[in-house]
Amino acid sequence: MNKRRSLLGIEQLKPDEIQHLLRLARRMHGSRPRPLLRDRRIALLFYEPSTRTRVSFEFAAKALGAMTAVVQATASSIEKGESLVDTGLTLRATGADAIIIRHPSSGAPHLLARHLDIPVINAGDGMHEHPTQALLDAYTILRHKKQLRGLKVAIIGDIYHSRVARSNIFLLSKFGAQVVLCGPPELLPDVAAGIAPGVRLTRHVDEAIRGADVVMVLRVQKERLAGRQLHMDEYVSGYQVTPERLRLARRDALLMHPGPMVRGVELAGDLADSPQAVITEQVANGVPVRMAVLATALGAAR
Amino acid sequence: MNKRRSLLGIEQLKPDEIQHLLRLARRMHGSRPRPLLRDRRIALLFYEPSTRTRVSFEFAAKALGAMTAVVQATASSIEKGESLVDTGLTLRATGADAIIIRHPSSGAPHLLARHLDIPVINAGDGMHEHPTQALLDAYTILRHKKQLRGLKVAIIGDIYHSRVARSNIFLLSKFGAQVVLCGPPELLPDVAAGIAPGVRLTRHVDEAIRGADVVMVLRVQKERLAGRQLHMDEYVSGYQVTPERLRLARRDALLMHPGPMVRGVELAGDLADSPQAVITEQVANGVPVRMAVLATALGAAR
Amino acid sequence: MNKRRSLLGIEQLKPDEIQHLLRLARRMHGSRPRPLLRDRRIALLFYEPSTRTRVSFEFAAKALGAMTAVVQATASSIEKGESLVDTGLTLRATGADAIIIRHPSSGAPHLLARHLDIPVINAGDGMHEHPTQALLDAYTILRHKKQLRGLKVAIIGDIYHSRVARSNIFLLSKFGAQVVLCGPPELLPDVAAGIAPGVRLTRHVDEAIRGADVVMVLRVQKERLAGRQLHMDEYVSGYQVTPERLRLARRDALLMHPGPMVRGVELAGDLADSPQAVITEQVANGVPVRMAVLATALGAAR
Repeated sequence: MNKRRSLLGIEQLKPDEIQHLLRLARRMHGSRPRPLLRDRRIALLFYEPSTRTRVSFEFAAKALGAMTAVVQATASSIEKGESLVDTGLTLRATGADAIIIRHPSSGAPHLLARHLDIPVINAGDGMHEHPTQALLDAYTILRHKKQLRGLKVAIIGDIYHSRVARSNIFLLSKFGAQVVLCGPPELLPDVAAGIAPGVRLTRHVDEAIRGADVVMVLRVQKERLAGRQLHMDEYVSGYQVTPERLRLARRDALLMHPGPMVRGVELAGDLADSPQAVITEQVANGVPVRMAVLATALGAAR
Repeated sequence: MNKRRSLLGIEQLKPDEIQHLLRLARRMHGSRPRPLLRDRRIALLFYEPSTRTRVSFEFAAKALGAMTAVVQATASSIEKGESLVDTGLTLRATGADAIIIRHPSSGAPHLLARHLDIPVINAGDGMHEHPTQALLDAYTILRHKKQLRGLKVAIIGDIYHSRVARSNIFLLSKFGAQVVLCGPPELLPDVAAGIAPGVRLTRHVDEAIRGADVVMVLRVQKERLAGRQLHMDEYVSGYQVTPERLRLARRDALLMHPGPMVRGVELAGDLADSPQAVITEQVANGVPVRMAVLATALGAAR
Repeated sequence: MNKRRSLLGIEQLKPDEIQHLLRLARRMHGSRPRPLLRDRRIALLFYEPSTRTRVSFEFAAKALGAMTAVVQATASSIEKGESLVDTGLTLRATGADAIIIRHPSSGAPHLLARHLDIPVINAGDGMHEHPTQALLDAYTILRHKKQLRGLKVAIIGDIYHSRVARSNIFLLSKFGAQVVLCGPPELLPDVAAGIAPGVRLTRHVDEAIRGADVVMVLRVQKERLAGRQLHMDEYVSGYQVTPERLRLARRDALLMHPGPMVRGVELAGDLADSPQAVITEQVANGVPVRMAVLATALGAAR
């Protein structure tokens, strides 16, 4: 079992492993990519719908010359009752050199990695982690700020259900950023502050945003609100990021969102198009970051 | 915004732009294609099912060396409430150099093109236009006839719901063909004759076909017939193109159908296999036509 | 019509055609594949879900340099009522040089092959044949045994519904193996013994396995059991392959399963992971076997 090269989460990574990936992504950014993964086969195993993450990984893999095969949960032998591990073993046996997996259950990529001798890349598992999103978010911040240390990062919204929030919290905390979480109790239990060192929690959005260097807004899933008796209009009045609220942040603060956005819910009107917003830049940075992740996982970097 | 290179519809194109595309398609036809789009990324964003159009675009893009990613509406973050424009911005941010879109709403590609700085290719939008179909139809006619000017073209069937009919009418009219539309009032309202210069309308299929150089038959959608209280057997007896009816056309008339066909409904028995039918040739011509469209959109032609 | 190069089933193949494919697969195995199918277009037309077979064919085609397009029944114009043959003609017209088809109806690939002048590869048709599975199974056996002649091969489980069983029986019988079929009457009618020379039938799993060189276990489809009033626990007690039962086979017997497996139903616990099991090897061998099939079908071998 070679688990070292899998990317399962940010929590277990050392800061220098993260820095190595970010450095490699910077080298890959912009320049015409070399076919480092020529003749390599990469399977994208998606048990949940995805546009941005799947297409980003697919273009990253193809840009490096790899062959890809996309397997979506609804049109595969997964329907015939085969176990996740057997599906992974099958893909590996067809010659896949790496598996990129998105799965609704936390820990699914880890299970796969324990049973396979090829790298497994977590593209989002349940409410657990989404490590390449945190890497591209850090990459994006570092294109605008000198370092993560000392930055105040406000994360606002449905943090409880968000693997993006978790991965970002782990990463930012490792590098000494000050993380402030903000949301209603239904979406942000008190225990969340204990997730990593340097994390605070507030119920007041103004307090979260005041003086922030980065304001990270998360998508609110309407279904989930409904289930928890939280009304959309209460959420909007209490937690929506508006131009007025954003003015409390530092003047050079970045506005981030991992997408997909529902405009008018978590973010007012066209704030996503304001000069402070780096939301499409986040998506764009996803490709070199994933190229770096794939090249590293497959031992083809440098 | 660079909208000039998008292909949104035939209506706005000038005749010499159309001729340029057809000429380029002819140059690309048959010869081993050069990798004009090497390292280019093309997203195929399909909100409606499609075999022929999607596969045709996919092979056209790949034959020119481009990387492709297919996004289908049912397995993507579209389900999470993201707007069309945000989906387009996301795909563009992943590095897509062009987006090919099929959408059930008329005008969806135009909306996308207004917000993106990359070319958008309309692969069919609602009941509006299907420009590459009209281009490949013109290309097909011109492989058999000297020019479009003066040709009598009968278009028969469900014209009201057909984006194929609209795009063809615009194109044929621009080049001075005589277009005769034919169908029952439920599928062809009287106002349709006003869509472009040189268009006539008749309820009598014999009159439409008599002396025609081209007979273009459209698919009848059963669901739609049902909704409009038109009985299938009435449709068949009144409008189905049969060998007897086709004999009224010129002896060298072409029989065309954009597909998918439902044999025995709009076309009798195996008329689709008769020597006059150029139906599979239409499909085959779609690939060089779409290669020309993609190469032009991406500024890679010549 | 050029049907010779299609691969529709094992039944019609001559032993030397089979040996030729297996020899070619051996040559392709392991070595870096040459781009024998560069510029060739291969359509994968799947009317049933599939992971292993589809991905295996896709990687095989791409490894040889071909362009692929995947068409799945649920997202295509198939939904609009187009006939199978017209879909095939359409794909051929888009420039497909071969069509790989999986279809729930027996004979669908044959119908396609009769109407197309390009090779058709059967990737599983109804309850009829799955020829590449039988080829890769033979390939796998021959990596461990000197020859098929004289081997005792037990095939256990839902043989009645299994195209894998049929193709394997045809192939093994052609090469003089002794085939023993075993299952309850609901899943194995008495007439099955007449399918090919050298085939026996038993209801006693111990008798089937005793002295076998190969034990091939088939997936049991729960839905089908239900329909036939056969209880799962009766099946498990009567026919599940367990470590005790497997001990009746020769000590060097191979345990095979075409996948997807449902562990704990047709196979006890983790027997699939035992040293005798060659189940993932079967999947791995599928890729060179399918490369050989594609290269041969397209006249590119040697």
